[in-house]
Amino acid sequence: MRKTNPLRSDIAWSTADAIGVHGYDLCQDLMGEVNFGDMAFLSVTGRLPNAGESRLFNAILVTLVEHGIVPSTLAARLTYAGAPESMQGAVAAGLLGLGSVFVGSTEGSAKMLAAAIPDGNTIDAATLPSLASAIVLHHRREKLFVPGLGHPIHKPSDPRTTRLFALAQQTGFHGSYVALMQCVSETASTEYGRPLPINATGAIGALCCEMGLSWNVSRGLGVMARAVGLVGHVLEEARQPLSMELWHRTEDEATAHSRGKLRSGDG
Amino acid sequence: MRKTNPLRSDIAWSTADAIGVHGYDLCQDLMGEVNFGDMAFLSVTGRLPNAGESRLFNAILVTLVEHGIVPSTLAARLTYAGAPESMQGAVAAGLLGLGSVFVGSTEGSAKMLAAAIPDGNTIDAATLPSLASAIVLHHRREKLFVPGLGHPIHKPSDPRTTRLFALAQQTGFHGSYVALMQCVSETASTEYGRPLPINATGAIGALCCEMGLSWNVSRGLGVMARAVGLVGHVLEEARQPLSMELWHRTEDEATAHSRGKLRSGDG
Amino acid sequence: MRKTNPLRSDIAWSTADAIGVHGYDLCQDLMGEVNFGDMAFLSVTGRLPNAGESRLFNAILVTLVEHGIVPSTLAARLTYAGAPESMQGAVAAGLLGLGSVFVGSTEGSAKMLAAAIPDGNTIDAATLPSLASAIVLHHRREKLFVPGLGHPIHKPSDPRTTRLFALAQQTGFHGSYVALMQCVSETASTEYGRPLPINATGAIGALCCEMGLSWNVSRGLGVMARAVGLVGHVLEEARQPLSMELWHRTEDEATAHSRGKLRSGDG
Amino acid sequence: MRKTNPLRSDIAWSTADAIGVHGYDLCQDLMGEVNFGDMAFLSVTGRLPNAGESRLFNAILVTLVEHGIVPSTLAARLTYAGAPESMQGAVAAGLLGLGSVFVGSTEGSAKMLAAAIPDGNTIDAATLPSLASAIVLHHRREKLFVPGLGHPIHKPSDPRTTRLFALAQQTGFHGSYVALMQCVSETASTEYGRPLPINATGAIGALCCEMGLSWNVSRGLGVMARAVGLVGHVLEEARQPLSMELWHRTEDEATAHSRGKLRSGDG
Repeated sequence: MRKTNPLRSDIAWSTADAIGVHGYDLCQDLMGEVNFGDMAFLSVTGRLPNAGESRLFNAILVTLVEHGIVPSTLAARLTYAGAPESMQGAVAAGLLGLGSVFVGSTEGSAKMLAAAIPDGNTIDAATLPSLASAIVLHHRREKLFVPGLGHPIHKPSDPRTTRLFALAQQTGFHGSYVALMQCVSETASTEYGRPLPINATGAIGALCCEMGLSWNVSRGLGVMARAVGLVGHVLEEARQPLSMELWHRTEDEATAHSRGKLRSGDG
Repeated sequence: MRKTNPLRSDIAWSTADAIGVHGYDLCQDLMGEVNFGDMAFLSVTGRLPNAGESRLFNAILVTLVEHGIVPSTLAARLTYAGAPESMQGAVAAGLLGLGSVFVGSTEGSAKMLAAAIPDGNTIDAATLPSLASAIVLHHRREKLFVPGLGHPIHKPSDPRTTRLFALAQQTGFHGSYVALMQCVSETASTEYGRPLPINATGAIGALCCEMGLSWNVSRGLGVMARAVGLVGHVLEEARQPLSMELWHRTEDEATAHSRGKLRSGDG
Repeated sequence: MRKTNPLRSDIAWSTADAIGVHGYDLCQDLMGEVNFGDMAFLSVTGRLPNAGESRLFNAILVTLVEHGIVPSTLAARLTYAGAPESMQGAVAAGLLGLGSVFVGSTEGSAKMLAAAIPDGNTIDAATLPSLASAIVLHHRREKLFVPGLGHPIHKPSDPRTTRLFALAQQTGFHGSYVALMQCVSETASTEYGRPLPINATGAIGALCCEMGLSWNVSRGLGVMARAVGLVGHVLEEARQPLSMELWHRTEDEATAHSRGKLRSGDG
Repeated sequence: MRKTNPLRSDIAWSTADAIGVHGYDLCQDLMGEVNFGDMAFLSVTGRLPNAGESRLFNAILVTLVEHGIVPSTLAARLTYAGAPESMQGAVAAGLLGLGSVFVGSTEGSAKMLAAAIPDGNTIDAATLPSLASAIVLHHRREKLFVPGLGHPIHKPSDPRTTRLFALAQQTGFHGSYVALMQCVSETASTEYGRPLPINATGAIGALCCEMGLSWNVSRGLGVMARAVGLVGHVLEEARQPLSMELWHRTEDEATAHSRGKLRSGDG
């Protein structure tokens, strides 16, 4: 006989006249009182942010909402073309591409930095170069990319990183993790002999560490922010479609070499 | 020969040192300057909100983030249990349940109200009862639910509706669509002989009309807000799981009547 | 206090040494004994097919597996490019585009035919023209497409339809529903003044009716068959990718008109 | 200026009167000629199977279609409850749970065996014990589960494995990979001091190696087979729902401890 374990969730409850979310009254304490980014902070940490946390956390989410035409926005738009009655399906299709190649690198840099400075305390700045060297050499030896460095378009530096680190200064979150990430970037650039600036996901990984958010939270921020951007792309596809043209062009080109050809020669 | 049409998107662009989003410089104009809800408003309308729009729009999104244990949060958590390496997959699974039964009713009430007052102008309050009667009788005749009315838990009124309409008063968005929705609720309650108060999706449908947002935007608001809440549920599942217990209990009960039984009697 | 209802599923059960599926012993009665298409028939009807049903049902599924580069296969491939660690996510993204525009038309024609001949009995062939006229005129009046007619590429006839109806003859499933669909096609071609042959989804809708499968089963056949085809496309993307090229071309063209332009003129 | 690369796909093409799939004429060579499992074999290998391959490959797919009430079938059913208009969304939600915990272990055992016997050739049976020991000790040292061994319900042996290996004998695919997997099971059982029989995913991983199918193909087989089973569960949910009851029970129990409680004590 299997022993039954209790089912328990501490996020929210409903009664006839109220809804509680992490101990706050949704209608009285949250609606009209906090912005959508603060509500997201509550969802991932279980508490509301202070002013500095609110400013930096909202800025991180704003950074991740939109990067124009990328594989995930194309997947969402192509899905909408086949199932326009299901906006949720198109957004879900777009989210499914947020894996190890794109937005997932936020998670990678957060993990890497948290492993190097495990307890979240400030450390002696003099030890950063040796920590950075160890990280870079480990990745080089294992033939892995250092997560959070380099960008195909944004060169020689990623403007989002510059802005995020300035906001971190203003809000008191420019600490050891940011310093270590900068040191990793410099060390990697020297080691590989080419500029490897910190990209937006690397910056956000470092800032998540500064704010005490774990690596799986950092992955979640990309997912929630891109959901917002994907709704925008689906709405544009509805009024100004590009999917059908993209399909026909691709089909024409990709199958032209074989069209009409069969194994037997005559079908 | 197929004629080629241009591919065009007006949402965002990237250059080496800047990213433009709806004509704003992402790093200078948006990051650290606007909150996540304002960024969502920009994504769906192409412009930034004024102060009143920002307050009401953020409140609408905050309303939709979280409603505790519901089918979509369970679907996300069960998905995470099988594929914990893919947070985006778990959130996508949760979003897929936001269809015609649950969050989709926002769309239904927005469509219904926009059809009744098509041009978005203020109308003579004296005509509202006849508009409301026409709506209720049409749904009754077609054996359809009036979208946006009634709630299995929140009785006799939905506290979110009360709060949203108070915020609409404060921000100048308590106009003809809200008045018509209230009139529809009263008419339907009389006609069906039981209380049919406006629920949160009905209130949000009316407020979308007041703000000039089309019905497919209203569907999108539920999708983006629930993406935030789903990340919170997946993170809770990671630290305090309920999926495996839920699975075993359900399997035990649902298949007990047939376990071991075969057509042939001996297999 | 809410009354508890039982949870029950009649599909399958497991014990330490056996698995039952719709009353069959999975290991003894099904594995190695029936093909994958027969297993699919069992999944949707709860029984195994006879020889004629097996041949036609397998042929229907084979028809729907693959149609080359289409929006859903592109969505799957673009998703894989971002999350190659999650094949299930790429296939899911592709399935999400199987909505009202593409594969969903199977459902539409099945519903239309089942409504015209509700009890599934053979009817007098002399009444088919008037049934067909009523269907075509109804759709014309409501400005709706007649589901299952016409194809952008396959003209003047869809070769899959020809083959499916030949197989229906051979297996004894060429009855009133097929005859009605043919009559609808002829009537619509005359009425609209252009050839409107029965496409593959129209043929399959008719054959589902002949086999006694309900319209929601017909939608399911497209979903399961395309899942097979999508795995093939994801595997090709892994060894011979096209997504990154497609992305860069599209981004280049679609945003060229606005690149570098800001509202303020200088950002 | 970016260099343009060609877009190419070798899977299928369409002309006005024919569709080619991997060089076969869909209508003449495949529809009515091959079963759904053979079509799946064609999708993943680019060629049709011979008789032995057809029997074993169909049996593998049949094995994976259905395992009753599991997390992925519950996720699909809960999704359908919210969006019954979108069967593709419910099936997609179910597929998203086929990750590293459940069906993904097919991939793990296929990778493990292919790495141990890389070139697919028969090897001297005398070397199997040392290969198996190396595998088990490696996993033990790294504190990893050996993929494909053990099952919570099917004890002391998995009946699907017994049947699959008997079919492999009959079709000529009972070679070195199966022998190695059996040796790994015996070695692990001794090493860990408890029975660790080969489960169905371990058996299928070994048979994929025997058939020359790569590890990412093995993951794909689970995805396509479960898509079939998920359609069956969604159809049962439509006629005999359990999702709403499951939701209400879970919500009642999981939030009872906090219902009505707020941080402030009065909201």
